[in-house]
Amino acid sequence: MYTRNAARFCAHCGAPIVRRVPSGDNRERDCCDRCGAIHYVNPRPVVGTIPLWEDRILLCRRAIDPRYGKWTLPAGFMEVGETTAGGAQRETIEEAGARIEVGPLFSILDVPHVEQVHIFFRAQLLDLDFAPGSESLEVMLFEETAIPWDELAFRTVSMTLRLFFADRARGAFGVHIQAVPPPSAPKDTGR
Amino acid sequence: MYTRNAARFCAHCGAPIVRRVPSGDNRERDCCDRCGAIHYVNPRPVVGTIPLWEDRILLCRRAIDPRYGKWTLPAGFMEVGETTAGGAQRETIEEAGARIEVGPLFSILDVPHVEQVHIFFRAQLLDLDFAPGSESLEVMLFEETAIPWDELAFRTVSMTLRLFFADRARGAFGVHIQAVPPPSAPKDTGR
Repeated sequence: MYTRNAARFCAHCGAPIVRRVPSGDNRERDCCDRCGAIHYVNPRPVVGTIPLWEDRILLCRRAIDPRYGKWTLPAGFMEVGETTAGGAQRETIEEAGARIEVGPLFSILDVPHVEQVHIFFRAQLLDLDFAPGSESLEVMLFEETAIPWDELAFRTVSMTLRLFFADRARGAFGVHIQAVPPPSAPKDTGR
Repeated sequence: MYTRNAARFCAHCGAPIVRRVPSGDNRERDCCDRCGAIHYVNPRPVVGTIPLWEDRILLCRRAIDPRYGKWTLPAGFMEVGETTAGGAQRETIEEAGARIEVGPLFSILDVPHVEQVHIFFRAQLLDLDFAPGSESLEVMLFEETAIPWDELAFRTVSMTLRLFFADRARGAFGVHIQAVPPPSAPKDTGR
């Protein structure tokens, strides 16, 4: 089971953290008994796109861990101050150097065991002038039949691609919300 | 402009935080030069429901700040280890004591100036045995014409309700994604 590094010191005053249920709450939090701060931890949004050029989809081969060398849709942690669609566009630029028009929301995938929510948007590539960013080894367009299913980095990527191709086959795109179950393999990072 | 309390000490080792752009990154982070930790901050998901009983919607009057005494849909910060729909159901139980069946995803509202993403699901009340939880003063069902528009706690609630009634009027429910602009009034908390 994935857990973030536990907090040991209060980020506000530097005193040791006490793990307890605050008054009026119903679950354990990181509490500071010196300055009274309660440090809440919440799931983090991951935002990305399904960039399309005619019938092909853009994938990036990861130049970073986890899943170095595996293929992914452009996606990453949402930053403060941006919108979900804005973050998805930023990640597409950063990882694939790709100019896109962000389209409709497509999938929301809960990944509770890694404390994440993955949100993907359909997107239209505006030209073919893409190039790998610093987090990608290469960037390529794939027909459905050429998708490297066994070399995909994360289950949210394979789920999103399967949903996308199913919707495209029936000629109607929906918005999909699903949960990713915990991995069976101990080393799976869960994304 | 809303900002979270800035971190001053490393939660891992207690050393002072240095605000700088880490190597390979492109924006300032909370960095620790003693243990090397980088403390990322990301937007937080808020999850809630639109609980329906026949043609009436359940609202809660807030017993807590911000917006004490104002009306809201049941909603709150998503907790680690749960799904978006699971969190929305938990909040509905906690704030309204309401038994519901969570239905389809309805709205995703980006609130970048408070670093939040609000996610609402349609929901069906299973009975009328609801009662205010500790964070609510009262819980009531409202017809559309009785909604206390001027007494709603947050703009994401009024936006979600307006979208809901518009969809109901046209007889088809969609999934809506919108951004909430920064408030004009300085005291607006932005939610």
